[in-house]
Amino acid sequence: MTAPLHTIAIIGSGLIGRSWAAVFARVGARIQLYDPSQQALADARRWLGEALVAESPLAAAADIGFCSTVAEAVEGATHVQENAPEILTAKRALYRDLDRLVAPGVPICSSTSALLPSALFEGLEGASRFLVAHPTNPPHVIPVVEIVPSPWTSDEAIAAVEVLLSQCGQETVRLLREVSGFLLNRLQAALVNEALRLVEEDVAVPDDLDKVIRSGLGLRWAFIGPFETMDLNARGGFKDYAERLGGVHAALDRVTSSPSPWDGAAPAAVGQARRQVLPAAQIAARQQWRDRQIVALRALKASAERDFLKESQI
Amino acid sequence: MTAPLHTIAIIGSGLIGRSWAAVFARVGARIQLYDPSQQALADARRWLGEALVAESPLAAAADIGFCSTVAEAVEGATHVQENAPEILTAKRALYRDLDRLVAPGVPICSSTSALLPSALFEGLEGASRFLVAHPTNPPHVIPVVEIVPSPWTSDEAIAAVEVLLSQCGQETVRLLREVSGFLLNRLQAALVNEALRLVEEDVAVPDDLDKVIRSGLGLRWAFIGPFETMDLNARGGFKDYAERLGGVHAALDRVTSSPSPWDGAAPAAVGQARRQVLPAAQIAARQQWRDRQIVALRALKASAERDFLKESQI
Repeated sequence: MTAPLHTIAIIGSGLIGRSWAAVFARVGARIQLYDPSQQALADARRWLGEALVAESPLAAAADIGFCSTVAEAVEGATHVQENAPEILTAKRALYRDLDRLVAPGVPICSSTSALLPSALFEGLEGASRFLVAHPTNPPHVIPVVEIVPSPWTSDEAIAAVEVLLSQCGQETVRLLREVSGFLLNRLQAALVNEALRLVEEDVAVPDDLDKVIRSGLGLRWAFIGPFETMDLNARGGFKDYAERLGGVHAALDRVTSSPSPWDGAAPAAVGQARRQVLPAAQIAARQQWRDRQIVALRALKASAERDFLKESQI
Repeated sequence: MTAPLHTIAIIGSGLIGRSWAAVFARVGARIQLYDPSQQALADARRWLGEALVAESPLAAAADIGFCSTVAEAVEGATHVQENAPEILTAKRALYRDLDRLVAPGVPICSSTSALLPSALFEGLEGASRFLVAHPTNPPHVIPVVEIVPSPWTSDEAIAAVEVLLSQCGQETVRLLREVSGFLLNRLQAALVNEALRLVEEDVAVPDDLDKVIRSGLGLRWAFIGPFETMDLNARGGFKDYAERLGGVHAALDRVTSSPSPWDGAAPAAVGQARRQVLPAAQIAARQQWRDRQIVALRALKASAERDFLKESQI
């Protein structure tokens, strides 16, 4: 028997930690889970017993250790994923231990959603190998992971984590600098804050605001992001869209503390970036592809809703 | 042969009008399309020839007339859908004609996305039967339709339009009062304006912002809206979520011209509305249902991306 390519230490085996274990099991990694709570470890063991079978044959055959000390969990680790509670001082104390115990050069990632890398990792001797890899819950279901380096994180550490997560089927995005909320929660907050204001102002009832997303924008955004959505909604792509319809979105902007984002350099940058991803000659084909996928998704949804109604009547 | 239950007049046969024709064909309606351009009518005829076969056998057998006058198109109509260019004076002139030509009591809907019902319909003799029914493009692919009454629109006209659209498989949402951008474009603008600011501030490259949606939030929002997303992300539902995590979203709000929407009455209203839609006892089952649907969607997407790569290499 050959040694596994990866040995993953997972610190904290709650909802996030156990789901990370299912992700890393996809590449046949040896997984070492630690939690200070024996109950949490037992719960993770039970949950993984079922979840890994559902994942894949490779995952079902995963080699998983349940460890009662951090030192045991990081023994031989080639990647460390920390999921401790969101308490800055507790995390920093843990990082000092990890920095001492984990072999040199091995990346150490935090799953934090609330704390900034500069605050978490400042002053650590091995700060260059620490970074945030923020999953969307649960990571074995939702693939996107936000990679947030601190000012001291090395390019090598970032690259190693991006390669590993990509091998596991995750989709990484990289923040060029840290910002609270990272990307996903900032975009979510912008939309939800607007939706709440529309409820507050008696413009619509809550379920109609949900419906506008789940039967409208969400059908596109499941396949293409907001910039690609606009790129495909104008013959000349995003640049054309911005020139003709940017003003509409600028007029709906409630933010008055900074200039309209449609007046700055961003629309041109998005237009250029889109042409890197999709040549102008393929816009029409991509529009047809988008519509076919949405039709397929609607068929999936129609049977999904029937499933839920049937189950919930049990 | 029996007469069709519905006769639909579609005024303007461009991208929106022809797609509306495909929607109404689903219920076996007689459809009468008018456009001042003979070329637009010919294009619509060609497009519908293919699109209706793809829709359903009922749609493929639809009885469609291509009319060279408005009077001919509205002859015997039980519903009118107007898709003229977004020019207020031109639309108002058209409405005066329609109000005179269309049988009393028949609802007349505008597909406008940019103009407000009060400006469109003020002073019309039959103002009570005029309303906005704003589709998402193209309506035969995306089901959501925003129903926006003017101050003079009757409940009967709204109800008749909602029933018809629901029979055609569309999903209506109703604005309780008019507001520019309606719901969909307001929510889209809030998210895109934040995304553009993150590009402007060099926080992320455009495609990573698209990826956060298409590989993250969009996978949830394809099935459940933003309020239900939060409702399912806390053991005690939206109320619990708001109490524990509302502050996070409030802190990410860039709007300073009005109070935080998390401090007002809206979060409690959303919490109550969610419990009307989903009893607390079903939250866990719905979470499992959500995750299963996302896994199914990811399988659909994996084969979809292969499709596009294959096609675009032709």
